[in-house]
Parts: sequence; C-alpha cells; structure tokens
Amino acid sequence: MTDKNKIPYKIYLEEQEMPKQWYNVRADMKHKPAPLLNPDTLQPMTAEELSGVFCEELVKQELDDTTAYFDIPKEILDFYKMYRPSPLVRAYCLEEALGTPAKIYYKFEGNNTSGSHKLNSAIAQAYYAKKQGLKGVTTETGAGQWGTALSMACAYLGLDCRVYMVKCSYEQKPFRREVMRTYGANVTPSPSELTRVGRKILAEHPGTTGSLGCAISEAVEDATSHEGYRYVLGSVLSQVMLHQSVIGLETKAALDKYNITPDIIIGCAGGGSNLGGLIAPFMGEKLRGEKDYRFIAVEPASCPSLTRGRYAYDYCDTGMVCPLAKMYTLGSGFIPSANHAGGLRYHGMSSVLSQLYDDKLMTAVSVEQTSVFDAATKFARIEGILPAPESSHAIKVAIDEAMRCKETGETKTIVFGLTGTGYFDMVAYGKYNDGDMHDYVPTDAELEAGFAGLPNVNL
Amino acid sequence: MTDKNKIPYKIYLEEQEMPKQWYNVRADMKHKPAPLLNPDTLQPMTAEELSGVFCEELVKQELDDTTAYFDIPKEILDFYKMYRPSPLVRAYCLEEALGTPAKIYYKFEGNNTSGSHKLNSAIAQAYYAKKQGLKGVTTETGAGQWGTALSMACAYLGLDCRVYMVKCSYEQKPFRREVMRTYGANVTPSPSELTRVGRKILAEHPGTTGSLGCAISEAVEDATSHEGYRYVLGSVLSQVMLHQSVIGLETKAALDKYNITPDIIIGCAGGGSNLGGLIAPFMGEKLRGEKDYRFIAVEPASCPSLTRGRYAYDYCDTGMVCPLAKMYTLGSGFIPSANHAGGLRYHGMSSVLSQLYDDKLMTAVSVEQTSVFDAATKFARIEGILPAPESSHAIKVAIDEAMRCKETGETKTIVFGLTGTGYFDMVAYGKYNDGDMHDYVPTDAELEAGFAGLPNVNL
Repeated sequence: MTDKNKIPYKIYLEEQEMPKQWYNVRADMKHKPAPLLNPDTLQPMTAEELSGVFCEELVKQELDDTTAYFDIPKEILDFYKMYRPSPLVRAYCLEEALGTPAKIYYKFEGNNTSGSHKLNSAIAQAYYAKKQGLKGVTTETGAGQWGTALSMACAYLGLDCRVYMVKCSYEQKPFRREVMRTYGANVTPSPSELTRVGRKILAEHPGTTGSLGCAISEAVEDATSHEGYRYVLGSVLSQVMLHQSVIGLETKAALDKYNITPDIIIGCAGGGSNLGGLIAPFMGEKLRGEKDYRFIAVEPASCPSLTRGRYAYDYCDTGMVCPLAKMYTLGSGFIPSANHAGGLRYHGMSSVLSQLYDDKLMTAVSVEQTSVFDAATKFARIEGILPAPESSHAIKVAIDEAMRCKETGETKTIVFGLTGTGYFDMVAYGKYNDGDMHDYVPTDAELEAGFAGLPNVNL
Repeated sequence: MTDKNKIPYKIYLEEQEMPKQWYNVRADMKHKPAPLLNPDTLQPMTAEELSGVFCEELVKQELDDTTAYFDIPKEILDFYKMYRPSPLVRAYCLEEALGTPAKIYYKFEGNNTSGSHKLNSAIAQAYYAKKQGLKGVTTETGAGQWGTALSMACAYLGLDCRVYMVKCSYEQKPFRREVMRTYGANVTPSPSELTRVGRKILAEHPGTTGSLGCAISEAVEDATSHEGYRYVLGSVLSQVMLHQSVIGLETKAALDKYNITPDIIIGCAGGGSNLGGLIAPFMGEKLRGEKDYRFIAVEPASCPSLTRGRYAYDYCDTGMVCPLAKMYTLGSGFIPSANHAGGLRYHGMSSVLSQLYDDKLMTAVSVEQTSVFDAATKFARIEGILPAPESSHAIKVAIDEAMRCKETGETKTIVFGLTGTGYFDMVAYGKYNDGDMHDYVPTDAELEAGFAGLPNVNL
C-alpha cells in the first residue's frame, strides 16, 4: 500500500481538532531570551513602560516566559475558523518530479486574502486592542502583507487602522495599498507630514522614498500621541511568536493524525514570525528531551542576520525609539541591498529564535535570490501554487535536502512552511522571467560597518 | 443546539468523497440545446468538422447530449486533488452582520493560483490534448483568468501554451501576463503580426487595443495553421459546462453530508461556465422531477444577454470564424460598455443555460456595478475574502435575497458560487474606493443595433 492510498494530498484538521491554545516555547527554554531593555536606562522594560506603546494583554504575553499555554479567546477562534485550519500538503507531484525518496510536506498559509500567515497575529493583536476599549491601532508595513492582514482584522472588529507604508512600496505596490483601503485602513506614505519625525526626515532628506525604520518611528509616534491608540508589530516580538504557534500546532496535529514524524523542519526567516510559529511545538519536544528534529532557518544571502550577524543588544528600528533587544543582528544601520523578498530584509531576528540558534538547537543557511526564484518557478509549475519570494527561500532548501536524500537513498520526511502567495510580487517574477535578476552578498567590510553602529550595552 | 455546533464554518469533503465523474445535464433535458451550425452550410457541425479545431475527445463530449455521466480520468483526478475539494463555506459572519434568518453558503473556487474555477476545465482540456499526442494548445484571454488557468494546466502536463491576450489587458494587467509567463506560456498581445487576421486588423485599425473577438480569431488561426495544435475555450461550450459540473457535484455532496437542502442557488453568468457547473446536479434533480430549486443567474446591467437579449442563432466570435450557436445573445457585434467584471462581458450565453432559461427552469437578474462593489466591499470586510468583480454579482443578489428573508422572516437556505478572488482587480477596487466608478445600461436603441447584426438563420 503506497502513501498515496493512506495519506491524502491535503490534510485538513476538522474544526474541533483545531488548537484551542497557543504554545509559548519560552516556557520550555533553559536559557531564556534576554529581556527587552529601556534604551535610556538600559534596564529591563517594565510592563508599565511597555503599556504606553502596546496593549496591556499583549504586554503580559510579551513578558511571560514561564506560562506554556495561553487560551485562544473564543472571538479569535471564530475568526480563525474563517480561514483556518490551513492545509498541510503532501507534495506528491514535487517528489515525483525530483525523483527523490524523501517525503515532502508543506504547511500552506497563503489561502487568505492577506496572502500570508500574518493574519494569525493581526487578529490577536487587534482583538486585545478592541477588548481594552481602544479606538484603533497604528503600524508600519513594507512589502504590505502585515498591513493587509492588520486591515482585515481591524475591519472585522470595527477598529480604526492607521498604516504607515514605506513610500517606495506605496508607489510601487498600488494594489497592496488598494487592498488595505478596501478594508477601510488609512494608508499614509512614509515619511509623511503627519508626524514630527516624518517632517524632520522630509526636511533633512527631501525626495526620500522612505524606509521601514522611519515608518516604525512614525507609527509609534502616531500611537503614543493620540488618545486611544496603540502600536502593533507583525514580527520579531515574542507575543507574535506565541500567536504564530498556531501554525506549528496545526502542523503537528495533522502529522500526528497519520503517525508521521518529520526529520527536518524548514522555514524562511526574516524577523522570525513564521519560523518561530512553525517549529514551536516541535522545538518544545526537543527542549524537553522527548524527540529530536533538525530545524533549518533560511535567510537571504543579502541579509544574513543568523549566518553572519552578531548576537548582541541592538535597536529594533533605525529611528531608535523602540526598546533594545538582544538578537542576532547586522546592526540597525545595515541597509540590505535590493532583494525581492521584502519580508526578509530585517536587520535582526526574534530574540527567541536568536537564543535557540545560539544554543545550537537550530541551524541556518543563506541562499541567493536567483536560486530562490529557480526553485519558486519549478514549484509553481509542479505544485500549482505561485509562492511568495519569502516562502520560496524555504522551498529552495527543501528541494536541496530532498535531492540530498536522492543521492544517499534516505527516505527522510521534510516539512517546510509555505508562508504565502506571490500574487503581489509579479514585478519580481517579471524580472526573473526577463533574466534581469541579480544577486547581492554584502562584503565583510559592509557587515563591519553595520556592527560598528551596535549600541555599547553588551556585557 | 445551534447550527454553529453542528455545521462547521467550512465543509471540506474527504479526498475519497470527491466526485469521480462529471455530470452532463443535457442528458436529463427534455428540450436539448440546439446544435452548433456550420456557418457556411448552416448544417449541424459534424465531429469531423469540429476536430480540425478541437481535440477529438472534447468533440465527443461536445456533441453528446445523452450520456449523463463521464468518468474523470485518473490524471485529472490527481490534479484536482492538488487544489480541490474547494470549501463550501457557511457565511455565519455575513448572516450575523445582516441580521437575517436566512442560512447562507458559498462554494469558494478562488483558492488556487489561477484565482478562479477556470482551472477545472483547463486541466481537462489540456489533458485530452496531451492524450491525443498534440504539441500544444492555443487560446485567447481577456481578463486573464482563463489564460492563467490554461498556463498552469499546460505547465503541469508539459504542453506548449500559446495565449492571445487582448492588447489593452496585456498592457493594463502586466501581473496576469507575468503569472502566465512564469508558467511558461507564450503570451502575445492581440492583434499581433503573427496571424493573417491580426495583420489585417492592424492594417485597417492601426493603434487598436484589441478585442476578445479578434483574439479568438487569432488563436483559432494559430491552432489550425500549425501541425499538432488545437484551440481551447474556457466558457460557453457544453464540454466546459460538463467539466465545471465538479463544482456543483462537490457542493451537493457537502450539503448532503449535513442534510442541507438549498432553496435558492445563485451564480454570476458571463458565458455560463460557473453557473452551469454549480447548478448542474441540482438542475438534474429538478429536470427529473425529484426536487425543486430556484436558480438565479446574475449578469451585469451593462451586458444583459439573458434579461434583455434574444434567443437566436449567433456567431460566437466577432471574427465569425467559429460555429454558430443558438443562445440568448446581444449580437456578436454588441460592444458592452466598460465594466470591471471582464469575465461577464460576453455577448452570448451557453446554449445549455439558454435553453434552460427559455424553458423557465431558471431565472435571471441584472445588477449595476456600483451596487456590486458595495456588496463586494461589505463581503470582504465581513467574510475576510476579497472577491472578484464577477463573483461579486452573485454576492450582491445573495445579500438581496437574505435581506428579503429578514423582511419576511423566512429561514431560506441560500447557496451561491464565489468563483474567484479579486487580487488582480485592484484597479477596479481603486476606482470604487476613490468614488470614481460609473454605471452603464445600454439603451434599447443600442440593443437593437446589436440584434440587427444577428445572422438570418432563425427558423
């Protein structure tokens, strides 16, 4: 009896099998992630300090590194039921095309209008803001997936949503902007005249097309200077890892249903929201000594925070208004060269994943973008899904691992996270189709320049 | 016990519950659809005549109005498993937001990279071409969903795919074009220099931005003048209705699983591929006198072939190279005014649906596009899916029917087809968001001008 007779192409959990709690991997970590520091006092941020910027319930989640499980509120569960469970797909066609004995599965998070896994945390953060009686939330968006997800969540809950979108994306990705507007969000190109920091940057750099760092600063200023608003963030933070654990919990439940144990789990990593969520429950088993898995974080060679960065306290934003976080980083002043995976261009990495990586509990590789689009195009034609450039980093390494199995004859089980679709990335695909895509790898000197800007708080 | 405890938000069939056969509604029709006519002889087209343009197996399906069920070949079933079954969604959130006692379900066909139901027939047509040993297929595309679907199917089977894309879409929808290119399709803006008919049109109308009629003529000429190629079409034909019956069969199986009997079934109608597929098995029950349902076809007020057209033989294309079909039509020379639902801008309607409509077995309504986008935006915010403008015609009428139930207190069960997503229609949404959308309704005189061009073959 072959796998095809036993295991369907797509494993869907029943509604009643969906996770009812999020899992907080920090509870099982021997070495806890280092705390966020107040940039002025260099002391750990208190709940009071954080609650000026973030919602109260989210501050609690951010600071709690001992509670293993958090109940998912019923309202969020109901929202999840509209687009979850996401399918765990057996890549039969890809296996056959590669001629590999490996068994390949992917958790596909792209089947919702935001186009990615970002919605899992957006609805949670919007819910807690609503519960606190706030009027609205502010955020920044680069590529636009997080902004779209937050707009959807806010529209559903009747919450005001103010998005600062990096100006060059605002102009180059008008479709993303229109999706957010359709969901009722107020989308402002950043830098803008609406904030003090925006006006300052415009005065100093007329004609600038903006940056994520600047957009963060504007969103934070907007939230802290308007009654009834808080700032929300789509990656990096530990609360985001917590919400995204729903990806891993569903994946594990689907695998358990068919008694499948993965050998390798692969995810792309920018700020870490997808990878952290996907591996969470598996990492928990590894931390508790129950099982072993090989985890692989995949990052772009143009922005290699894990593979070539330093483990140090750093600013989370270029405006340096946010708390300091200890993480693998290239320095908040590091400007990654052009790369079409906008979601992977962050200079740092989640503190949780940074600590796990430093403890050698997971590995990381970096890949160049042309090879990523080679893999993406192959995958699209064989599996029928046009992947996001970010997600395609994981596809590339999953294929590499499957081809290694072909050489050795090993029947390893590989699971990877397919975080989203590439429908709003066709400019990048166009460049690839035209043979006009280039690879960039920062020199050691460029990295040193980034490290030189690290704050001097490392003990 | 409320419905929410019994019926999940999304009903997914198990893989083994998926339909293994397509259903041919013509087998149960007392009045068969009129045959296709040879435009030169005005005699019914023979299999031999048709097989110069279409694949042999598809010609058989086209001409067979007595066989009720056709086995779906294993290769197509395997492809279906990659993106089907599609979910039947219970619109709990929409019901709540409307405050209606009606129970609303929608069959969502947008969760695949082509973004619509078109893939169901594209894979079937490509498969039969491959089986016949052909090198490739040609087609035309307007909005681009059919071209995308066919590109995906051809990439999967290793078949050459040549798409003639209406020039204005080619230029205004570069993303759609890039998706097709990513799937390896050869996409040519029409009219082109590649065909005799294209060169003729370019000579007569330099600077023309093309039309669907011209693109059809180019695709047919390309297929018939190259060894090993055939032409394929994404709607109108009876073979397409047959393949699309998978939508209705899955819908019915999902409803049966929970003992749900719909009262009203609603679908948007351009050429009829979605509506015909969705209603097929239900219409079969009605034709056999087993059950009764109310079927509603929804068309744009700007292109009202059922509600204001004539039931007559007409040309299927403006180039008049295709067979004549008897259908509800506005005349092949009718140019619908600008409407953002490109997939609903066809002058005619499937012969099968035309006959059913003429026999009063289904009803039809027309709606204006601003009201359609009102409904689309409401739906997006409440149900979390950004719908295609075409699909939103069905949403509009489903909401109207649900509000009627609110007035009368009736707890009717409404099922509608959500054919696709609007991710490549953000220009239209942008116009709506900017308050810059207009409605157009053809005058009686404009319709008369269209009817004047009908061929004189009506007995």
